[in-house]
Amino acid sequence: MTLPTDPIANLATLIRCASVTPAEGGALQALGAMLVPMGFSVERPTFSESGTPDVENLYARLGGDGSHLMFAGHTDVVPTGDEGDWTHPPFAAEISDGQMFGRGAVDMKGGIACFVAAVARHLRSRGKLPGSVSLLITGDEEGPAVNGTTKLLDWAVDKGEQWDAAIVGEPTNPEALGDMIKIGRRGSLSGTLTVVGRQGHAAYPHLADNPVRGLLTLCDALLDPALDAGTNDFQPSNLEITTLDVGNPAANVIPARATAAFNIRFNDTWSVEDLQAAIHNRLDAAASNPRLRPGKTEAIEFDLSWKDRPSPVFLTRDDKLISVLSGSVQAVTGRTPALSTTGGTSDARFIKDHCPVVEFGLVGQTMHMVDERVPVADLEQLTQIYERFLQDWFA
Amino acid sequence: MTLPTDPIANLATLIRCASVTPAEGGALQALGAMLVPMGFSVERPTFSESGTPDVENLYARLGGDGSHLMFAGHTDVVPTGDEGDWTHPPFAAEISDGQMFGRGAVDMKGGIACFVAAVARHLRSRGKLPGSVSLLITGDEEGPAVNGTTKLLDWAVDKGEQWDAAIVGEPTNPEALGDMIKIGRRGSLSGTLTVVGRQGHAAYPHLADNPVRGLLTLCDALLDPALDAGTNDFQPSNLEITTLDVGNPAANVIPARATAAFNIRFNDTWSVEDLQAAIHNRLDAAASNPRLRPGKTEAIEFDLSWKDRPSPVFLTRDDKLISVLSGSVQAVTGRTPALSTTGGTSDARFIKDHCPVVEFGLVGQTMHMVDERVPVADLEQLTQIYERFLQDWFA
Ligand SMILES: [Zn+2]
Ligand SMILES: [Zn+2]
Repeated sequence: MTLPTDPIANLATLIRCASVTPAEGGALQALGAMLVPMGFSVERPTFSESGTPDVENLYARLGGDGSHLMFAGHTDVVPTGDEGDWTHPPFAAEISDGQMFGRGAVDMKGGIACFVAAVARHLRSRGKLPGSVSLLITGDEEGPAVNGTTKLLDWAVDKGEQWDAAIVGEPTNPEALGDMIKIGRRGSLSGTLTVVGRQGHAAYPHLADNPVRGLLTLCDALLDPALDAGTNDFQPSNLEITTLDVGNPAANVIPARATAAFNIRFNDTWSVEDLQAAIHNRLDAAASNPRLRPGKTEAIEFDLSWKDRPSPVFLTRDDKLISVLSGSVQAVTGRTPALSTTGGTSDARFIKDHCPVVEFGLVGQTMHMVDERVPVADLEQLTQIYERFLQDWFA
Repeated sequence: MTLPTDPIANLATLIRCASVTPAEGGALQALGAMLVPMGFSVERPTFSESGTPDVENLYARLGGDGSHLMFAGHTDVVPTGDEGDWTHPPFAAEISDGQMFGRGAVDMKGGIACFVAAVARHLRSRGKLPGSVSLLITGDEEGPAVNGTTKLLDWAVDKGEQWDAAIVGEPTNPEALGDMIKIGRRGSLSGTLTVVGRQGHAAYPHLADNPVRGLLTLCDALLDPALDAGTNDFQPSNLEITTLDVGNPAANVIPARATAAFNIRFNDTWSVEDLQAAIHNRLDAAASNPRLRPGKTEAIEFDLSWKDRPSPVFLTRDDKLISVLSGSVQAVTGRTPALSTTGGTSDARFIKDHCPVVEFGLVGQTMHMVDERVPVADLEQLTQIYERFLQDWFA
């Protein structure tokens, strides 16, 4: 029986499964087939929720005692775009000039391929793990993320699973392997703001109340002043207005309502609840500020609603987890990784409620793009980093 | 042969023709049938243009020499809305409590009915006109106004017609007959403003350029400061932003472009060209003002386009026309009419290029509403005002 010690072969197998969200595409099946010979017990729960596609997932555990390490990730991938734009077909795993091409090469079938190879090499050289390792792999990270990691965590906890630490294998390095470990992520909160006015004819504005003026005033209040100046661990929180919508086709008509939507990426200054309250206060103050509403005595009438499932901030303060991972990166690459909290959200926001979590994987430059690809040398180095981490974590 | 000296009978005939734009509905036919026995030569040109409905019109002239007075108006009416909401059917011309109900009662079949009755009474009492009177009546005032008054004027000029003065019979009185003569109207100009940014992910705003910020800046520049403070004859010009449109459904995405449309009602401070240049200058200044664009070095990239067929301002300075009409109103009603330039645009904007023009008709309160209606006493008074005007104008 051969163990899956070669990350290049592992990744080629995974890329050849066309697992565009929410399709499983054979990817979890192939991953399970690598893990079973290593001694993992593999389970494949599928979760459903009305209004979202059913999603297949995988949970695999090796070892029953000692420190319990989770590796988390996803086998689903984003769509390819026009396949004709690719230099090599997106599901062929062709290698050219030392790089393997394929959708998911870095985000993040590559990270999974390397972690599996690292565990396999550890078993080959030492026979067994001095603890437990689990893979928590979803098929719904790039989709609505409803039937993926959150439900898989709840399902595992219901069976009695507990973890001491977790690594998410997302591509965290901006330029070169070893650049960056993510030790936290900003939260994300989205809202919709509607201003209610009174419809009328553009020639008789005194008989109407144009909601666009009120919306402009409230949007200015959302954008200025800045929410905060950043913290020791995080960049400043940022608000972007993502859409404005009135939808009035009649040039002579003052519309009845006007809507804006916005998204906030926020740091550890804020809980979700505090931030919602601060935004509401800001809007209330602007809406009733007579200086911002010349000629009107009533406040701007507005409605504010929040999108479901905001992402809270996470920040890992587990020194051992950070220092062991950082040391492994340094030992293999010679680089001291930055400990960063930049970028988008990841499934670590769900895992942080269960155990300390950090993120480290490949270089993200080609993720979600045409010709997504990974240097095969990076696959070998990342495997060595993960193997070194296993050795030092369980030491 | 009986002359159509009764405005109530004339109006009932016209209301019973369901001439919702662009349908002729028999209304111009019925009007022609009143005019021919009075000696008018009646012509019924139909105009076409691709993309708009064909429209029937009427031009009728009585007399071939002397001063030539035009009466202008329209027999088309706006839709009734839900006929079940009307107390009396909208095309029945029922009289109840001294008021005649029906779509077009005040806007403006009533004005036409009174003017026809006024000419008929003049002929009955004096035998002939000491000059010429023409009716220029369109079926396309409430619609796109493409195949109506403008083309009818061009058509008449091509035949050699010239006029010394014109009255438009639109409902000009806010509360009571005799309140208000319109001696001018503001112009109307509509434009669309698009800001081009760079799409991106809401978590990486520095890699994107959110066009919403630029649009908010430019909208503020449109609204403030005011365009002018008004003139001797006109209220201040006013700009309303009529729509904002981005149409981005994705809460995590910074959009690529954002659009606003606006309508300006402007006074005699401005020609259309001057106003367009002033708006463009305002936007250019705001777009390149670094104070309004913190963190960016390039100017806001925007595109400004103007809607076709802006309405220029008109203001009548013909003392005789204003004083004779004003005197007639005063003699019949005992009221001194205000000489106003308020409100929307009217077909007078086209006529003003051919001769001095003023507007006077019924009370506008119920125009375009359910239960549009006119007191029959007002019909009698307006007929007397028009008859008095004919007598004094030609004196
Ligand atoms: Zn990913
Ligand atoms: Zn009208």
